[in-house]
Amino acid sequence: MAKQEQSATEAVAPLLRVIPLGGLGEIGKNMLVLESGENLLIIDAGLMFPTSEMHGIDIVIPDGTYVIDRLEQVRGVVLTHGHEDHIGALPYFVEQGLRAPVYATALTQGLLEVKLREQKLLGEADLHVITADDVIELGPFTVEFFHTTHSFPDSVGVSVTTPAGRIIHTSDYRFDPTPVDGRPTEEQKLRKWGDEGVLLLLADSTNAERRGSTDSEATVETMLEEVMSQAEGRILLATFASNLGRVQQVINVARRHGRRLGVIGRSMVNNVRIAIKLGYLDIAEDELLTAGEMESLPGNQVVIVATGSQGEPTSAMVRMSMGDHRQLALREGDTVVLSATPIPGNEELFNRTVDNLFRQGANVLYHELGNVHVSGHGGQDDYIRMLDLTRPRYFVPVHGEYRHLVLHARLAERWGLPKDRIFVIEDGETLEFGGFAGDSEMTARRGEKLEAGHVYVDGLGVGDIGNVVLRDRKQLSQEGFIVCIIAVDEYDGEIIYGPEIISRGFVYMREQEDLIRRAQEAVSKVVKKKAPTAVLENKIKDALGNFAAREIGRRPMVLPLVIEV
Amino acid sequence: MAKQEQSATEAVAPLLRVIPLGGLGEIGKNMLVLESGENLLIIDAGLMFPTSEMHGIDIVIPDGTYVIDRLEQVRGVVLTHGHEDHIGALPYFVEQGLRAPVYATALTQGLLEVKLREQKLLGEADLHVITADDVIELGPFTVEFFHTTHSFPDSVGVSVTTPAGRIIHTSDYRFDPTPVDGRPTEEQKLRKWGDEGVLLLLADSTNAERRGSTDSEATVETMLEEVMSQAEGRILLATFASNLGRVQQVINVARRHGRRLGVIGRSMVNNVRIAIKLGYLDIAEDELLTAGEMESLPGNQVVIVATGSQGEPTSAMVRMSMGDHRQLALREGDTVVLSATPIPGNEELFNRTVDNLFRQGANVLYHELGNVHVSGHGGQDDYIRMLDLTRPRYFVPVHGEYRHLVLHARLAERWGLPKDRIFVIEDGETLEFGGFAGDSEMTARRGEKLEAGHVYVDGLGVGDIGNVVLRDRKQLSQEGFIVCIIAVDEYDGEIIYGPEIISRGFVYMREQEDLIRRAQEAVSKVVKKKAPTAVLENKIKDALGNFAAREIGRRPMVLPLVIEV
Repeated sequence: MAKQEQSATEAVAPLLRVIPLGGLGEIGKNMLVLESGENLLIIDAGLMFPTSEMHGIDIVIPDGTYVIDRLEQVRGVVLTHGHEDHIGALPYFVEQGLRAPVYATALTQGLLEVKLREQKLLGEADLHVITADDVIELGPFTVEFFHTTHSFPDSVGVSVTTPAGRIIHTSDYRFDPTPVDGRPTEEQKLRKWGDEGVLLLLADSTNAERRGSTDSEATVETMLEEVMSQAEGRILLATFASNLGRVQQVINVARRHGRRLGVIGRSMVNNVRIAIKLGYLDIAEDELLTAGEMESLPGNQVVIVATGSQGEPTSAMVRMSMGDHRQLALREGDTVVLSATPIPGNEELFNRTVDNLFRQGANVLYHELGNVHVSGHGGQDDYIRMLDLTRPRYFVPVHGEYRHLVLHARLAERWGLPKDRIFVIEDGETLEFGGFAGDSEMTARRGEKLEAGHVYVDGLGVGDIGNVVLRDRKQLSQEGFIVCIIAVDEYDGEIIYGPEIISRGFVYMREQEDLIRRAQEAVSKVVKKKAPTAVLENKIKDALGNFAAREIGRRPMVLPLVIEV
Repeated sequence: MAKQEQSATEAVAPLLRVIPLGGLGEIGKNMLVLESGENLLIIDAGLMFPTSEMHGIDIVIPDGTYVIDRLEQVRGVVLTHGHEDHIGALPYFVEQGLRAPVYATALTQGLLEVKLREQKLLGEADLHVITADDVIELGPFTVEFFHTTHSFPDSVGVSVTTPAGRIIHTSDYRFDPTPVDGRPTEEQKLRKWGDEGVLLLLADSTNAERRGSTDSEATVETMLEEVMSQAEGRILLATFASNLGRVQQVINVARRHGRRLGVIGRSMVNNVRIAIKLGYLDIAEDELLTAGEMESLPGNQVVIVATGSQGEPTSAMVRMSMGDHRQLALREGDTVVLSATPIPGNEELFNRTVDNLFRQGANVLYHELGNVHVSGHGGQDDYIRMLDLTRPRYFVPVHGEYRHLVLHARLAERWGLPKDRIFVIEDGETLEFGGFAGDSEMTARRGEKLEAGHVYVDGLGVGDIGNVVLRDRKQLSQEGFIVCIIAVDEYDGEIIYGPEIISRGFVYMREQEDLIRRAQEAVSKVVKKKAPTAVLENKIKDALGNFAAREIGRRPMVLPLVIEV
């Protein structure tokens, strides 16, 4: 009986599949695919910055095999805003042949163009600028947008009307009654869609740990007011280059205090220029201070925005904290505001930067000392409000590490959604929607699990590095290596050269000549007798491994090489 | 005139030198030396856990060259409490020949004995147990103690009467009206010493960023009460193995709720045993649950304390979060409390552990969700109170990264100390006290700066690893290496073997045979002509470096080896 039901269920093809390729169970590289029949819609294609275990990796992009195998089925790509974790992987998909139209608001499009141009792919992409009031038909999908408040101007969330019903994907958002751009998240659209019926809500979980709501951006303005009235010298404020809302706040307050704006840090300069050009910043390019003016004007007429709010090693602020920035030197009396909260994993770099800024004599304000930053993501109260507005039938928490998804799911349950309408899924775990119950009601079920891992980008290599290389890098980072070479006569098998030892990261070779000599002796002892190359190599490996462990308690990677000449 | 004054000043020998060897400008490896004539007094000798840049390093100890060179002048060592960052380096000094008497309270001594025994040094050390009411004469120093509230039972701060006057060193402390052990920090002693006159206060700066005071330990008890009343299954609480106060709290609350205590994790089991033996925990060893009972008893009768509150990879809690602990498996319905705040740098490991515990089906409580932990260090209000009690003539903030020292110094200035009586100094920067002003008043001046860096311990090697090896390990971790070998005929210089390439961490050799072949070709091209070995090696290095950069955008370490056979 149960069996019969099950096969009846399986016979019904889904009307819609939800395929998360990134951002569920892990922060970053956000990418969601909706599939209906042979039609795919992609929402965002972001990158992730490597965790500390991903040695030497530059960036991480989603494993998009499922999409790459079906490029001709992609009806469109929608980008919700211009942060790296939402657009950074798109050039790699274009490189793989993605030619479907890409829709985004103007500033997002502007930043994407820079990326595509850098990778010489601008001519390959089919870019379209939209506004939050546009409606786009893409195959079976009708895509609408709602403006959201986030730390990127002109961000949008997405509503997709699919054959199974309406899906709302919030992307990154918050509710803020007093946003910098004066345009709050469009609640009226959300409420209207909620009235009409929402099949599935996919909602941002980044701050699921935060009770209440996030402070208004206006609190940062209050902080800026205070700092600008009190500081007698220059003010330097570090923030993400993409946080152009913060830059606008600085401009607003600076005007009231007779301070003029300087910009340093390559990506900040680029972004500010694009934003000015596209009308996203209320300042003219020729109003900006030159490097000379930043040094020569009286300190109380200067405010500078810079990169480096996370302590990124090559950023302007970090170079200044070390006293080796090309253009600008900090001086006693400068006030530095690090307008950010360190991302988990960045605390060491962040704290060291604060220490070094203090060592330079600057007065430093950072998150532990005041309201220097507010998150662009809402807290639990925002989540409840989103549920209130949209009243979805099903709910999937997205954009979060696993604990955030669980906490957001619990919140939705407390809000009133039955537990079986909430799915905590991770990247690659699909959901299917269709009339599986046999009546007209749409229901959801878990679908097959796809491969959806990391694709590592290291230099020019995309995807060639996997766990083997990373494991080697980890061992090398902790223990170093020993290569041991001997040459044997190809005719009589006598050792005619070596053992020669090359080693790095194991001991300081120059000061450990005696240790190295004894290591050579340990090898010599075990390779006295003639033997096949492979046997000799194994003996060398064991001898050196044991020697290193016994003599100095380390486990270097040992690579023997026996050559026959 | 000014010059004359100066030389007059320099002629006066200091009566006391304060020599910080660790813990000032950097958290951990706390070690302070007081010097008067040819007499040294050491307060604490701790270790530091490596930062993420110290690849492969096990622990870091202070550079104690100044002490090692003057071992016969050491009159005594005082240990304030048994945390690793206060006692962990002592065995290394004993190994170097330190035989002066070591004074500590019983539990600190007990933990130190374990360390010394492990390193086969117990017979070499001259250990003495003291209580907070003892007075010790050590050469020109009279050492007294005051009990402090800290996350280690029976912690003390130190007063040292020196020829220059009284020095108070708080070590780690907080004020707490309701401490777990019922013994608050001894304010009456501090006030009395303050009345008598304090030349110098050296005070803990760990929480200098925290406004107000730290919550009482009693708030953790409230949390434990709540969790134990609500949880229907087992409760597992992770904390530092040395936080025996927390363990006692668990015992207290568990008794009221009919739960029995289990202990897992090697260091936790060891510490609990020692603490029971020395009377620091109010429980008998045979009351503890066996591993079998932790599994078989009804969940609501079980509470388990475990190591792993920081997400330490080999700890009991982390193994359980991965489902591979030897003794215990988590199950649905278990409640896990991570009773700690992640130390900066540990957030990634910590967060991953929380995620994995949720994946195991446990309900997880951690610092973002409630009052699971309070710091053993006071906040700014405690600092003010310490100044109120001791009213020192001079002030040096200790135990903190640079920003903490600066913030604590500012606080002391706001409290009322003149700026020139406050010294922000870092490890190795000495202070001298004497009658430099020519009258009877003791004054302070900066003395010479000593070497006081890191000594890295890696395996059995103490101090052999320096920046060269660490730089190599860093490069290896990010780029890997290529070793390229060719053999040339020692008579005619013809290449008779190679180029052979060995590489790890650069590309996945098995899947990149073509790339490796082309790398060999690139080498072959540049070594066609006979040349001296060094010339050939340089050519190989350049050729492979350029090849890797051009072909795959990476910069591996390239090590050429030309052998003559």
